[in-house]
Amino acid sequence: MRMSQYFLPTLKEDPSEAQIVSHRLMLRAGMIRQSSAGIYSWLPLGLRVLRKVERIVREEQDAAGCQELLMPTIQPAELWQESQRYDDYGAEMLRIRDRHDRNMLFGPTNEEMITEIVRAHIRSYKDLPKLLYHIQWKFRDELRPRFGVMRGREFLMKDSYSFDLTYEAARVAYNKMFVAYLRTFARMGLKAIPMAADTGPIGGDLSHEFIILAETGESEVFCHRDILEYDVLGEDIDYSADLQPIVDRWTSLYAATDEKHDELEAANLGDALVNARGIEVGHIFYFGTKYSEAMNASVTGPDGSSVYPEMGSYGIGVSRLVGGLIEAFHDENGIIWPESVAPFDAAVINLKSGDVECDAVCDNLYGKLNLAGLDVLYEDRDERPGTKFADMDLVGVPWQIVVGPRGVKNGVVELKSRASGKREETSSEAVLARFAG
Amino acid sequence: MRMSQYFLPTLKEDPSEAQIVSHRLMLRAGMIRQSSAGIYSWLPLGLRVLRKVERIVREEQDAAGCQELLMPTIQPAELWQESQRYDDYGAEMLRIRDRHDRNMLFGPTNEEMITEIVRAHIRSYKDLPKLLYHIQWKFRDELRPRFGVMRGREFLMKDSYSFDLTYEAARVAYNKMFVAYLRTFARMGLKAIPMAADTGPIGGDLSHEFIILAETGESEVFCHRDILEYDVLGEDIDYSADLQPIVDRWTSLYAATDEKHDELEAANLGDALVNARGIEVGHIFYFGTKYSEAMNASVTGPDGSSVYPEMGSYGIGVSRLVGGLIEAFHDENGIIWPESVAPFDAAVINLKSGDVECDAVCDNLYGKLNLAGLDVLYEDRDERPGTKFADMDLVGVPWQIVVGPRGVKNGVVELKSRASGKREETSSEAVLARFAG
Repeated sequence: MRMSQYFLPTLKEDPSEAQIVSHRLMLRAGMIRQSSAGIYSWLPLGLRVLRKVERIVREEQDAAGCQELLMPTIQPAELWQESQRYDDYGAEMLRIRDRHDRNMLFGPTNEEMITEIVRAHIRSYKDLPKLLYHIQWKFRDELRPRFGVMRGREFLMKDSYSFDLTYEAARVAYNKMFVAYLRTFARMGLKAIPMAADTGPIGGDLSHEFIILAETGESEVFCHRDILEYDVLGEDIDYSADLQPIVDRWTSLYAATDEKHDELEAANLGDALVNARGIEVGHIFYFGTKYSEAMNASVTGPDGSSVYPEMGSYGIGVSRLVGGLIEAFHDENGIIWPESVAPFDAAVINLKSGDVECDAVCDNLYGKLNLAGLDVLYEDRDERPGTKFADMDLVGVPWQIVVGPRGVKNGVVELKSRASGKREETSSEAVLARFAG
Repeated sequence: MRMSQYFLPTLKEDPSEAQIVSHRLMLRAGMIRQSSAGIYSWLPLGLRVLRKVERIVREEQDAAGCQELLMPTIQPAELWQESQRYDDYGAEMLRIRDRHDRNMLFGPTNEEMITEIVRAHIRSYKDLPKLLYHIQWKFRDELRPRFGVMRGREFLMKDSYSFDLTYEAARVAYNKMFVAYLRTFARMGLKAIPMAADTGPIGGDLSHEFIILAETGESEVFCHRDILEYDVLGEDIDYSADLQPIVDRWTSLYAATDEKHDELEAANLGDALVNARGIEVGHIFYFGTKYSEAMNASVTGPDGSSVYPEMGSYGIGVSRLVGGLIEAFHDENGIIWPESVAPFDAAVINLKSGDVECDAVCDNLYGKLNLAGLDVLYEDRDERPGTKFADMDLVGVPWQIVVGPRGVKNGVVELKSRASGKREETSSEAVLARFAG
């Protein structure tokens, strides 16, 4: 993408409304624009990151055997009356009347709707287990939306739902999602710690939040120091194997959110106790037959009797993760994207756009890197080098290939890593061999 | 995907509520489930098709130089008050009050919101032209939702918006979208005819609907017989070239929707006049400064004066296209997907699941086709062959590889084309060489 044509409205000044660094940098890097309180448009650069995050989430759900469907945003109130949650949910639920005066709502979550779908189509234990998910925009009418996409009103969530015949089978599904979540966050370069958590309005008696540590986190969290050093999981997970040992390892050390914190138990940890702030990026629940029973979604069991499936639900805040990633990866100059979620893989910076030789070297690099399948941002604007460097550091592309008139005369370009700041002089050919070889 | 594990709730009987074939087949093939009038969940098979259609739409927008962003579903009423459309839009607009009693709405289209974004960030003629699009769920509170996803209330639309300094530049943008639309529908195997159309509530004085002919179409359309024979466009379109000759060719013959039909002019066609029914799958508009002026979205022109950009908007009904495709491609046994949008590329049908030899041949085919990157549906259920054939014809996978005990003994499998119905005996190796070679 040529910056001269790209819709990338970066800001030089810090916007006054942004209280935390991710919100500030998303506005400054031209990633989002607020349209109402807590409701954002994702501009082209922001959307690229959102889609990369979404893709990783999807791939790991698919790998764990979860099947994707897509439920609508607008739900009928009747569904929520069946589960008794219509009144419970309070003012956070965006309630709507359609032209025929039917009560509708913008879904904040989908336990009811997925249970209705399963009730309609799954009648026998032979059709279980089922693990289903969707990635859809949700709405929660927060009293005080803040922190940009971290606590917005309209947000993109991945939510999965498991249906099993027995408690033991439901635990297998829970463990699959537990492990898939560890893998998902690890692929984004994040260390997300599973912590015992409260179940809130979802219900149930087993729940973990996945928390990344960040000073600006909204939750206070407590954990054993050693869990922060745990290795991330490799890619060789066999989801048909027994995953309990992995779950046991991650849950054997103390880790709890504020609501679940047990001071007596934590006191035993002594110096090993870490008290920090964290950002919730995922939340998994086992809640048994709460919804299948309330909504009469039974199946015929092996002995012909009627059985209510055991259920769980599993959420990842996809749009919130974009903010969480920036909280984790930034410096005073801007964002430092991990390569797996970067909006562009590399940038070609032409320090003298219009100069025949610089243009030729840049055009060649840009064309060949594109051909090799890389997403490349080409800084071809007629701007001062200082502006070009500042904008590129701000938007945080992992690799910058800097082409200037002096280097071109000597046959060299400069390759800069955004993360380490290291620069090396090299040749165009070496750059191409490295990234497009 | 193994059918024994797949959530694919096919129906044997025709659902009584479906009046047209696409609605009937989408329900029978387990593609969708209605949650409220005109609001559907996309079950796994349906979502696969929706995503393939969406991907083709996206690729052709990108190829035409259109940049993707993503606007939210919920919009503030103030935006629509600025353009004077808030009251005009009537009961089709889903109006919402949030917890702070602010007037919001579920966007039926995005002219206002994109104009606000451009107003905020684009100040100079140097930042034009801009061609922006998003693919997002929209809501129109239809009085009588019907025909499944063809006239639903919540629907997925691709909408693009162009901003240009002059009328001539705006026509260049219009032509790019005109040609991109021809390409988009052609890639799905559809013959979509651009027809002079009314502009309706969008406004403006130049507009074309893209119509596919189908007996169940909601619109009456009229066109010159020869336009139906026009070749589809190749992939070698150069969007930086002058596209006017292509547009002229497609618009030189008579083609008009009901509202724009001119009986006098049409009478001149004599026998060449076709009067048919059609389904609108795309609609493009040029409307000048209607929104930029009403919303005061001006830029500084080359001479320092203030200029209102010339605008156009360009829509494709992504979810509606899935229904339109079925209207165009089906027979009495079910859907016949064109390969470009098929939910699976091929199916392996095991006629005797549990038989060691049949299982071995099928497992080998399934594994290797998957490895080669194909999407394969593996019919491994314990069902009668008749049920397996009927379900596979119903869901319409383009290629069926049938493995039965007699064939396996002779080292052959049967390859069946869903479209032609032709069957040929061949070997597993030949099938692999053909699809995974």
